[in-house]
Amino acid sequence: MTFGIETKGVYAIATTPFFEDGSIDFASIDRLTDFYEESGCTGITILGIMGEAPKMEPEESRAIIKRVVSRAKVPIIVGVSAPGFAGMRSLARDAMDMGAAGVMIAPTPALRTDDQIVNYFAGAVEAVGDDVPWVLQDYPLTLTVVMSPGVIARIITNHPSCLMLKHEDWPGLEKVSKLRAMQKAGELRPFSILCGNGGVFLDFEPERGADGAMTGYGFPDMLTELIGLFAAGKREEAHDLFDAHLPLIRYEQQAGIGLAIRKHVLKRRGVITSDAQRKPAQMLSATAKAEVDYLLTRLAKHDRRAAF
Amino acid sequence: MTFGIETKGVYAIATTPFFEDGSIDFASIDRLTDFYEESGCTGITILGIMGEAPKMEPEESRAIIKRVVSRAKVPIIVGVSAPGFAGMRSLARDAMDMGAAGVMIAPTPALRTDDQIVNYFAGAVEAVGDDVPWVLQDYPLTLTVVMSPGVIARIITNHPSCLMLKHEDWPGLEKVSKLRAMQKAGELRPFSILCGNGGVFLDFEPERGADGAMTGYGFPDMLTELIGLFAAGKREEAHDLFDAHLPLIRYEQQAGIGLAIRKHVLKRRGVITSDAQRKPAQMLSATAKAEVDYLLTRLAKHDRRAAF
Amino acid sequence: MTFGIETKGVYAIATTPFFEDGSIDFASIDRLTDFYEESGCTGITILGIMGEAPKMEPEESRAIIKRVVSRAKVPIIVGVSAPGFAGMRSLARDAMDMGAAGVMIAPTPALRTDDQIVNYFAGAVEAVGDDVPWVLQDYPLTLTVVMSPGVIARIITNHPSCLMLKHEDWPGLEKVSKLRAMQKAGELRPFSILCGNGGVFLDFEPERGADGAMTGYGFPDMLTELIGLFAAGKREEAHDLFDAHLPLIRYEQQAGIGLAIRKHVLKRRGVITSDAQRKPAQMLSATAKAEVDYLLTRLAKHDRRAAF
Amino acid sequence: MTFGIETKGVYAIATTPFFEDGSIDFASIDRLTDFYEESGCTGITILGIMGEAPKMEPEESRAIIKRVVSRAKVPIIVGVSAPGFAGMRSLARDAMDMGAAGVMIAPTPALRTDDQIVNYFAGAVEAVGDDVPWVLQDYPLTLTVVMSPGVIARIITNHPSCLMLKHEDWPGLEKVSKLRAMQKAGELRPFSILCGNGGVFLDFEPERGADGAMTGYGFPDMLTELIGLFAAGKREEAHDLFDAHLPLIRYEQQAGIGLAIRKHVLKRRGVITSDAQRKPAQMLSATAKAEVDYLLTRLAKHDRRAAF
Repeated sequence: MTFGIETKGVYAIATTPFFEDGSIDFASIDRLTDFYEESGCTGITILGIMGEAPKMEPEESRAIIKRVVSRAKVPIIVGVSAPGFAGMRSLARDAMDMGAAGVMIAPTPALRTDDQIVNYFAGAVEAVGDDVPWVLQDYPLTLTVVMSPGVIARIITNHPSCLMLKHEDWPGLEKVSKLRAMQKAGELRPFSILCGNGGVFLDFEPERGADGAMTGYGFPDMLTELIGLFAAGKREEAHDLFDAHLPLIRYEQQAGIGLAIRKHVLKRRGVITSDAQRKPAQMLSATAKAEVDYLLTRLAKHDRRAAF
Repeated sequence: MTFGIETKGVYAIATTPFFEDGSIDFASIDRLTDFYEESGCTGITILGIMGEAPKMEPEESRAIIKRVVSRAKVPIIVGVSAPGFAGMRSLARDAMDMGAAGVMIAPTPALRTDDQIVNYFAGAVEAVGDDVPWVLQDYPLTLTVVMSPGVIARIITNHPSCLMLKHEDWPGLEKVSKLRAMQKAGELRPFSILCGNGGVFLDFEPERGADGAMTGYGFPDMLTELIGLFAAGKREEAHDLFDAHLPLIRYEQQAGIGLAIRKHVLKRRGVITSDAQRKPAQMLSATAKAEVDYLLTRLAKHDRRAAF
Repeated sequence: MTFGIETKGVYAIATTPFFEDGSIDFASIDRLTDFYEESGCTGITILGIMGEAPKMEPEESRAIIKRVVSRAKVPIIVGVSAPGFAGMRSLARDAMDMGAAGVMIAPTPALRTDDQIVNYFAGAVEAVGDDVPWVLQDYPLTLTVVMSPGVIARIITNHPSCLMLKHEDWPGLEKVSKLRAMQKAGELRPFSILCGNGGVFLDFEPERGADGAMTGYGFPDMLTELIGLFAAGKREEAHDLFDAHLPLIRYEQQAGIGLAIRKHVLKRRGVITSDAQRKPAQMLSATAKAEVDYLLTRLAKHDRRAAF
Repeated sequence: MTFGIETKGVYAIATTPFFEDGSIDFASIDRLTDFYEESGCTGITILGIMGEAPKMEPEESRAIIKRVVSRAKVPIIVGVSAPGFAGMRSLARDAMDMGAAGVMIAPTPALRTDDQIVNYFAGAVEAVGDDVPWVLQDYPLTLTVVMSPGVIARIITNHPSCLMLKHEDWPGLEKVSKLRAMQKAGELRPFSILCGNGGVFLDFEPERGADGAMTGYGFPDMLTELIGLFAAGKREEAHDLFDAHLPLIRYEQQAGIGLAIRKHVLKRRGVITSDAQRKPAQMLSATAKAEVDYLLTRLAKHDRRAAF
């Protein structure tokens, strides 16, 4: 299975389920894979930042890739960001050999100038091989690397193997508009744009030119429905659906505990067995859990998927 | 008029209205002052970060203080953060002489360790004088200074003249809970907590122990109503009101253009004449304005204050 | 007096002398001005970061400019960096009216992408007027803004009124080489480059293409001698002189207390009356002072200017 | 072999030698190990930041540990900093099983408040086991985590297995003095302090209370001699030796290319075969290499070790 410059819809950012002792819960990985597919996701991205990838040993990463790729019927993208290009290449080649559709690469945090960023990705593509389809991850809030539309355009122009932008700047609506305007002006070739940030601006991103979402919000079934409503031109219905979920989407936007909230919701929905994270990790207080549950109760009035 | 450790409700973070040429629009300042009062605000905070204070000349700051203090019937708090303590003292003393209720002090961005932060505020209080009531501003997202509950407790214990915390950490709910727990345990004296961040977590902050909000969201009348609903124990109604506003509150949470959105809404509501900012400033694109207006239209279905 | 794209030599970064109570010591300003001139400085830069400019009130800044300009026989450059362009313009126009040779502008710390930086300076030049000669300050360690050679070239190409680069990147030797290579290749017009960082790489910067130094090291007479030795092709003598001073130059490279060391040396040399800084400030411990004095004693064996 | 709270002298921060193709050069590792011992080093620290540890695969790290531990006659400390505690534990236990003397742990870059830092090390010690002797790495310039003397004291008090501080703050002299003063006042138990930053303040650190150096400067034989001179009370001779090396030590203090300079010197000294680094890496320009070689030539006049 492949993805391409015309990919639309929702790629789920998969969490990595663990048991309480920190070992990998492969049965939950299977359920999670099925759940994303049943939710209508176009694809799944594994081993990203929210997948706790930096806390994984190399052999563990490979075991997870193998498990997900062999089970999934949709394309799998594998996060391969690493401090060294040798490790990035090794993981990328192994992932492709196991049947992944492509890889996702984020800039290393020290980069500042346009040239530094462009050169970094040139080195990364040289390392993994220009035959490996990849997703450019733009996530300044966490990575502190700010890419202007011009820099993204340079990277995409330099590397035909870059098929997609994971757009996760904040604010970022103008960036999507600007990139699409560059394409209309004939300055930039086509590529897919899927948006992150937990979907918190997904009520406007499709109209700006995004092809969908790549995020790990606990209701991927809502995300796919939302993208479908926009595709069908049902703007008001789309906003109604979005607004019903916004209190929870917003609550998830808390750096440090966002993943804990996400795992809590997936556990409540019966998808994963435990909401354990690998240490160091930030956990939810009892009050925070109660607040999430209260938001779920309120959400259930508008969306039965939240009733459980 | 004074504020104190028992202050509750909403302090509006006032924007500073300018004409298109960048000069101060005092007539709009008057209307804005009246508007905040009519909205039920307990007080007004002027010359904060969102008030474009660093772009003001000293005599301009004093003219604004004089104008607002002489017109307002509620306590006025004046932002006096400055690179040097001499300038901070001068502005603070002048503000108090003109009738301000107190001042607000933020940490200088270079501070890192607990001791550095505590010592900075000791120097600031020595500079402005320990007879000046003040608000401690905790705003890590913009200032990069992270204050633990323990540090806040040390500052409040050291300085009886500190009467209030402007809480603007994100995530920050646990910080409010922790500070209130320290008080219950007898480890910390009473003080008021008003929350910022545009109100984006104001559906839970009162239950965590906050006394209200200090923020500049364009519907202060909704903020005061919300705090009132919580005070009356009407949790569901409070959340209903909050959720109706959340799409707009969330849209305002875009660093760099947040102030432009806020001024746009205040102009749309007829409070200020122009949404001009002093340069350098980020402005709204036509698309962004249309998105805000669309959110206002949707909001108007639930809240007639947004119908204009 | 003017400076230009062919300016060479040493511009002293002037400290601002204060009395113990924080008031400005104008008599010391006079002595300092004379001292820089007698040391062979080509010009003087006042009200920079090391001049504690952000701690000055507007009328104080103007008083200092007037005092220095009226006394000096060399060109005076005035730091005018400010959060708002209105204040920047006001100070720049006043400085030029009083007889300054030009102004120095640093980027505001929030800038990240190449375009953001280039646009910021376009706005600044529009504000101060394109008739005002100015120095571009490149100081990433303190300002966190990283300018690539390409960005500097764009700014210099866009603005004929930019005559000089204050180069203060670290590492920065390759940047000087790169800019000069761009000029040789006909891609970039001429401009002066003076180097900062307390002179800590001034044993190689002239050979890389720098025209001299702009820094506040307490021995400006040594800096001018050093630049003269390089100009005369006396490489070994230049390094011998530099190496004798390096222990002290290096000691000064301590963020936070660098200014305290500088003022201590200037006081020891009898130039300024007090080493007081405006608060908040970091002071030297008794041990640190003894270490500086020990380095001065050792230096005096090679350079009699340090014997006092 | 062990290290302890009374350890003095020089621990070399070992680079990791690679061949041009990026594979590990074990023969050079052997020569480097011997070289450090022959230089009089008390111990060797491997797999630190300068050892390019984050670019190594787990099995490579173990192969390097095994090689060095089996050859060395001095204690070996292994850098085990990792994003996840599971990986940190695994590497630490394996290192100890292979005969390492202890491990070195740096804080993860996101930490800000005193409590966050203290809690992080509590988690790390729980993970690796409180029977593993460890070195606390304090390196704010690269890691952005600032530890006050009070925080270091809390960590050392909490964890008897912490035997040493790798002190690499800048400025940092007062921190050493403060920690030693706390010990004299009976507030803090004994521990060893070895200083980093390439030795650039090693002319004063011993008198402040440091027990020696832990750094990778290409002349470890000079470092051990220097510490010996200070131990023998020969202050002037120590400064003479230090000052002769300072131009090169200073030149090495260039973020990004410091490691390239270090490897270049070790290659020139015949210790390692290639100065290759794993990508991404910053390399020396031809001009930079010539500058280093010029500094070596000048150094050779004072120190024959630089004549080759």
